Amino acid sequence: MTNDAIRDVLDAARAAQRASRWVGSLPTRARNAALEALAGRLESSRDEILHANARDVADARAAGIGDAKIRRLALSPESIAALAEGVQQVAALPDPIGAVTRETTTPAGLRVRKVRAPLGVVMMIYESRPGVTVDAFSLCFKAGNACILKGGREAARSNEALARCVRESLRAIGAGADEAAAMTLVTTSDRDAIRALLALEGVVDLAIPRGGEALIRFVHEHARVPTVQHFHGVCHVFAHAAADQAMALDVIATAKTSAPATCNAVECALIDEPIAGALVPRLARRAEQDGFTIRGDRRVVELAGASPAVTPADERDWGREFLDLTLAVRVVAGLDGAVEHIARYGSRHTEAIITEDAAAAEDFVNRVDASCTLVNASTRFNDGFQLGLGAEIGISTSKIHAYGPMGLEELTTQRWVVLGSGQTR
Amino acid sequence: MTNDAIRDVLDAARAAQRASRWVGSLPTRARNAALEALAGRLESSRDEILHANARDVADARAAGIGDAKIRRLALSPESIAALAEGVQQVAALPDPIGAVTRETTTPAGLRVRKVRAPLGVVMMIYESRPGVTVDAFSLCFKAGNACILKGGREAARSNEALARCVRESLRAIGAGADEAAAMTLVTTSDRDAIRALLALEGVVDLAIPRGGEALIRFVHEHARVPTVQHFHGVCHVFAHAAADQAMALDVIATAKTSAPATCNAVECALIDEPIAGALVPRLARRAEQDGFTIRGDRRVVELAGASPAVTPADERDWGREFLDLTLAVRVVAGLDGAVEHIARYGSRHTEAIITEDAAAAEDFVNRVDASCTLVNASTRFNDGFQLGLGAEIGISTSKIHAYGPMGLEELTTQRWVVLGSGQTR
Repeated sequence: MTNDAIRDVLDAARAAQRASRWVGSLPTRARNAALEALAGRLESSRDEILHANARDVADARAAGIGDAKIRRLALSPESIAALAEGVQQVAALPDPIGAVTRETTTPAGLRVRKVRAPLGVVMMIYESRPGVTVDAFSLCFKAGNACILKGGREAARSNEALARCVRESLRAIGAGADEAAAMTLVTTSDRDAIRALLALEGVVDLAIPRGGEALIRFVHEHARVPTVQHFHGVCHVFAHAAADQAMALDVIATAKTSAPATCNAVECALIDEPIAGALVPRLARRAEQDGFTIRGDRRVVELAGASPAVTPADERDWGREFLDLTLAVRVVAGLDGAVEHIARYGSRHTEAIITEDAAAAEDFVNRVDASCTLVNASTRFNDGFQLGLGAEIGISTSKIHAYGPMGLEELTTQRWVVLGSGQTR
Repeated sequence: MTNDAIRDVLDAARAAQRASRWVGSLPTRARNAALEALAGRLESSRDEILHANARDVADARAAGIGDAKIRRLALSPESIAALAEGVQQVAALPDPIGAVTRETTTPAGLRVRKVRAPLGVVMMIYESRPGVTVDAFSLCFKAGNACILKGGREAARSNEALARCVRESLRAIGAGADEAAAMTLVTTSDRDAIRALLALEGVVDLAIPRGGEALIRFVHEHARVPTVQHFHGVCHVFAHAAADQAMALDVIATAKTSAPATCNAVECALIDEPIAGALVPRLARRAEQDGFTIRGDRRVVELAGASPAVTPADERDWGREFLDLTLAVRVVAGLDGAVEHIARYGSRHTEAIITEDAAAAEDFVNRVDASCTLVNASTRFNDGFQLGLGAEIGISTSKIHAYGPMGLEELTTQRWVVLGSGQTR
């Protein structure tokens, strides 16, 4: 069984490598046409996709899978429309391939250009969200790459339904075997097979794990191919002594409640000591109103009085990615205290400060190490669309290759092209 | 012994991590001052460095180490002067840290910037060349990083003499323990200790192996930290049917002889069939004149007549990095034949075509996958200085993070900084 599974995925990966040359050679127009076709097919296959997804969700509920994960797994007519719109947006983005990012003439008279080129084969390993199947394919394909997609077992039927749409739209522009291998959905959950893919140096050019700790560890341990990880987001909002308190309350409450299962949702609010007496009771009332619960340190519990929204935190609540309507809240001693807490418990994902003091804001930005640091704005803006990339495949918490939202450019490499007239050295 | 060695390197790595915050916070002026001091110290310590190097070279000769490696190991008054000049050039380069590479205001009114920041701790693992100790330190330091340098055992005394210069120049600007840890020279050759360093996720931010196949394999097998590899250069020059033959001869001969031990030297010339009858005999005569030898395929041996410079190649000569005055030469069937040979035997390092036919040049550039592809110029121009980066730490044959020469920018990351006015979502 394992040997068959390994042989199958290795065959698929080599086919993907051949297909990557085909994708990389497609003119912009052909790549965009396939994406337009995909957007249409997602809409016209909506009922079929929802039906497959409903079966995945039912199985997941029967297996006792938690609410946060179910929320990530579930599709709706609206989310499918949003997926189709996303694909159309990717089609409309400028083609990164061939873009000249640097151009000089050297003293030796060489015309030197740095040119964007596809990576080749991108492998994505992810968990519940079936929408990733569409997002990852569309971005990889637009950037001239073939992709190998390994989704979560719990989303198998949803992913297969979406992959069918992709294959049909590729067939519309394809000629022969390559179009099928331009997107390979790996359906085995055999760990040895996944390990074999992660060891395929020279075939898989980049592997992107996106998910929880266990997934990231697995990939880290076994990957011989380059990886950029999309790890969890333990995001903090620090309400500084000089904060506009109403702004702090709004940012914290919405960053917790608007999409609690996302990696850029706030997990912990840090309240500066001088304003804790005023802010903590207001935050507790806001939690009661907005329907989230607070795990507070001793000071927070004291200051919140008898708020039913507040329970005492324990050490495990710091650095925890709740992914639900729970917010850890801690009183810290000034900016130093906040920076220290974030250095210890943060995940280099997204950190925000609320302050009217420009010097404090600058200090926070300089001292906090995160892919995105925000002043007076919600952590939820750390997102490829919101930051202007047009789309994203996820948010990298690696510093190498890409740090923060990965858009089209982050799915390319840059190579050098030099035109001379016989120069030697 | 191994346990002690592991404990020592792990302590050193954690000290480097603390020191990286110090380096990253140093103003441009202070970093440049330390580099200026280093350039001066290299000059004033020249005799001491040469003495240490002479002992390394003598030991290497006694151990029967080959000429190519000895050439890479040996320093001279001129090469030390060149090192010092290189450090001064790095000091004079613009500071990459803090540079804003993207700046937009989003529809939500957020001011979004992408800002260059240090990586943190960069580890470099390399072989004979002691000059790498100085080059790697100066580039890492200028880019705001601490570095851990693991040089070759055969260069131990040379590296120690150079590291002493670095430490003294850091002391001139330092205050306390951090300055020593800003550059750590790893002196153990204990493999378990190196493995332990390569597994230090979250402490070592990037590891750069630069050297031969065994070194790269070792790092690949054991690294849990991100790596960008500087692998060997199996570089080809393709003399196309429409080549200016005199230019082809000059490029091939000089790319072989000017610095045969470097990774961008040509290892194999591919001669297009229609011009082989004319070009091969001239190339053989050029080899006799310039003192290099040719390993030729059957056609080359035939065409070269009885040239004493030509011997028959065998299969192992294709894809071989000679690193000496040997050139493999093969007759290929047109551009397709050249592209096919390079796809099979190239190392994605540097590939060149000599042709007067612009369409053929474009076709070659589009179809060959290499960090640098050149038209009518020597492979030896794939070099950070020659391409205008000002300096380089080596040439990456990875496609991730950096592909081709790695200069200052490639030793940084880019993070997002967002200024808002209370935006929520």
